[in-house]
Amino acid sequence: MTTLKNDTFIKALLKQPTDYTPIWMMRQAGRYLPEYRAVREQAGSFMNLCTNPELACEVTLQPLRRFDFDAAILFSDILTIPDAMGLGLYFTEGEGPRFKNPIQSAADIEKLPIPDPEMELRYVVDAVRLIRKNLEGSVPLIGFSGSPWTLATYMIEGGSSKNFAKIKKMMFNEPALLHKLLDKLAQSVALYLNAQIAAGAQAVMLFDTWGGMLSGDDYNEFSLRYAQQVRSLLKTEIDGVKIPTVLFTKGGGLWLENMANAGYDALGLDWQTDIGQARVRVGEKVALQGNLDPLTLYAQPEIIVEKVKNILQKYGNGSGHVFNLGHGILPDINPDNVKAMVDAVHEFSRPYHS
Amino acid sequence: MTTLKNDTFIKALLKQPTDYTPIWMMRQAGRYLPEYRAVREQAGSFMNLCTNPELACEVTLQPLRRFDFDAAILFSDILTIPDAMGLGLYFTEGEGPRFKNPIQSAADIEKLPIPDPEMELRYVVDAVRLIRKNLEGSVPLIGFSGSPWTLATYMIEGGSSKNFAKIKKMMFNEPALLHKLLDKLAQSVALYLNAQIAAGAQAVMLFDTWGGMLSGDDYNEFSLRYAQQVRSLLKTEIDGVKIPTVLFTKGGGLWLENMANAGYDALGLDWQTDIGQARVRVGEKVALQGNLDPLTLYAQPEIIVEKVKNILQKYGNGSGHVFNLGHGILPDINPDNVKAMVDAVHEFSRPYHS
Repeated sequence: MTTLKNDTFIKALLKQPTDYTPIWMMRQAGRYLPEYRAVREQAGSFMNLCTNPELACEVTLQPLRRFDFDAAILFSDILTIPDAMGLGLYFTEGEGPRFKNPIQSAADIEKLPIPDPEMELRYVVDAVRLIRKNLEGSVPLIGFSGSPWTLATYMIEGGSSKNFAKIKKMMFNEPALLHKLLDKLAQSVALYLNAQIAAGAQAVMLFDTWGGMLSGDDYNEFSLRYAQQVRSLLKTEIDGVKIPTVLFTKGGGLWLENMANAGYDALGLDWQTDIGQARVRVGEKVALQGNLDPLTLYAQPEIIVEKVKNILQKYGNGSGHVFNLGHGILPDINPDNVKAMVDAVHEFSRPYHS
Repeated sequence: MTTLKNDTFIKALLKQPTDYTPIWMMRQAGRYLPEYRAVREQAGSFMNLCTNPELACEVTLQPLRRFDFDAAILFSDILTIPDAMGLGLYFTEGEGPRFKNPIQSAADIEKLPIPDPEMELRYVVDAVRLIRKNLEGSVPLIGFSGSPWTLATYMIEGGSSKNFAKIKKMMFNEPALLHKLLDKLAQSVALYLNAQIAAGAQAVMLFDTWGGMLSGDDYNEFSLRYAQQVRSLLKTEIDGVKIPTVLFTKGGGLWLENMANAGYDALGLDWQTDIGQARVRVGEKVALQGNLDPLTLYAQPEIIVEKVKNILQKYGNGSGHVFNLGHGILPDINPDNVKAMVDAVHEFSRPYHS
């Protein structure tokens, strides 16, 4: 493997000194880029794009040709594991992801297999290998997975949900059954992330998109506990090189102290959470990733620059901050505004690292 | 006016001693009750139901015939003010509230009138008078309004929204224009709540349903600031009797310290916020209202009782707690489960008040 030319992102996650604050962006490979839309059209469907390593590699690299991002992130979907378990993932226009065979009984949970990533998720692992090779060491590659709780919500609800009625009914009435599912998912997620690491991912992130729909106690019992289990099973050193880990719970700003004890190197922050206060709360335990309101990218570039400066100032001096949005970029954002953000982070963060 | 026979709710909001913890429930007059669905059908449309004081009175009283709630809440919609401003509120099946004439320009904001509640919102004020009379002093009547920020989101987006793209574009690019709208709304909300108080509302609550979609700084500037303006304009004493005020921001758990300084007597809590930690954070400044996960009502009654006990125990000893859900009850809940919750709150809260 080639040496990493830009390791600013890795160093920031490990709270080692850097010259500036690194930045990447959730959904940086996505619909706001015309070149992404072209490949997406060529692929025919979103699933075709995800399952074709060459195309997944191409769209992963696209944003790096436009912007000075300090990391690439594997282009994939968070629901590949349930699909590999046999639930039949598909996408509907406007309604998002759906499963042909959602979980409807204890027997469904009992018979769920734990996928072998090199078999049923081979297309992802192959994409990681291909992207890592094509990056030629320019920037690190981030692997990722949905969190056990978040995967379980889609598997039980059958798709996106407003109130999470089905999974919460199970959580309140049959908690042992839900724990069985979450344990299987934690094992599956750990195998999956370890396969991505073995294939070349240089950092990994767990996306807990729906943990914020829980009470604090239920979050600890049904989401964070399994994020910890995943973490405990990860092999985060390859040939003496550390693979940093990031945990992101959207809506988790109330629980940062607990999250900081889950063993991850960094926490992702949504935009509702004040990053300055977050830093005080977590102390030196973890790095922080975030957290510009994604809607800020609708603003004029000079306003975007001011909002970037504000977040850099809130985090303050020293390493341990990876700039990002607080959630994914929206499809109708002007790419010029992304450039304004990226360049502002690089330009105005230097004084905080001197 | 008759004397209040059960003033437990009022006393709890004012942190005065009570014998037990009072309870009411967001959307207690609603679709989970078959008798509500019958009146709703009779009315023909949701707007007909809202604008008919006799029917609004009837559905307000319905839950009190079934359950030992310690307060009634005016049956109305949070969007009556924008409707009275001429935006043309209507409801579509499955999509929720919509406006025929959403705000699309600075001129639209400039020409918005500040409604006179006794004129354009007369149907609400009449409903308050009628409900207060029919309650015969059994329990207090809560009046309410949507918060300026929350009203503005619907007025600019034209209805419900996922990302709040239009209002956030205005917020970032034309903040002065949004401030002008919010100031008009704050004046309108204060007049509206004062009219409800004059007509007989014995407590008032401000529902900030969408404040939680903002960053902390933007919440302070565009939501909380106008909740404070509303509060400063309220007449909260009628003939020497205090009218307690409640502020509820869904998703506002990170900002309780600031909210506690806005002048309200109590804060509503969503279910994500730990009520024990919340009490420590706000100290003696405010009472707290909440905060059972509404989905808990899908559980078996014995589980509901355990979850109720847990919240009572988290709040702990002394007055200042009004039990409630963390958000509105869902339409397909079994009313028997509501009874299990209400009775458990009354039975198991007494030791905390001895």
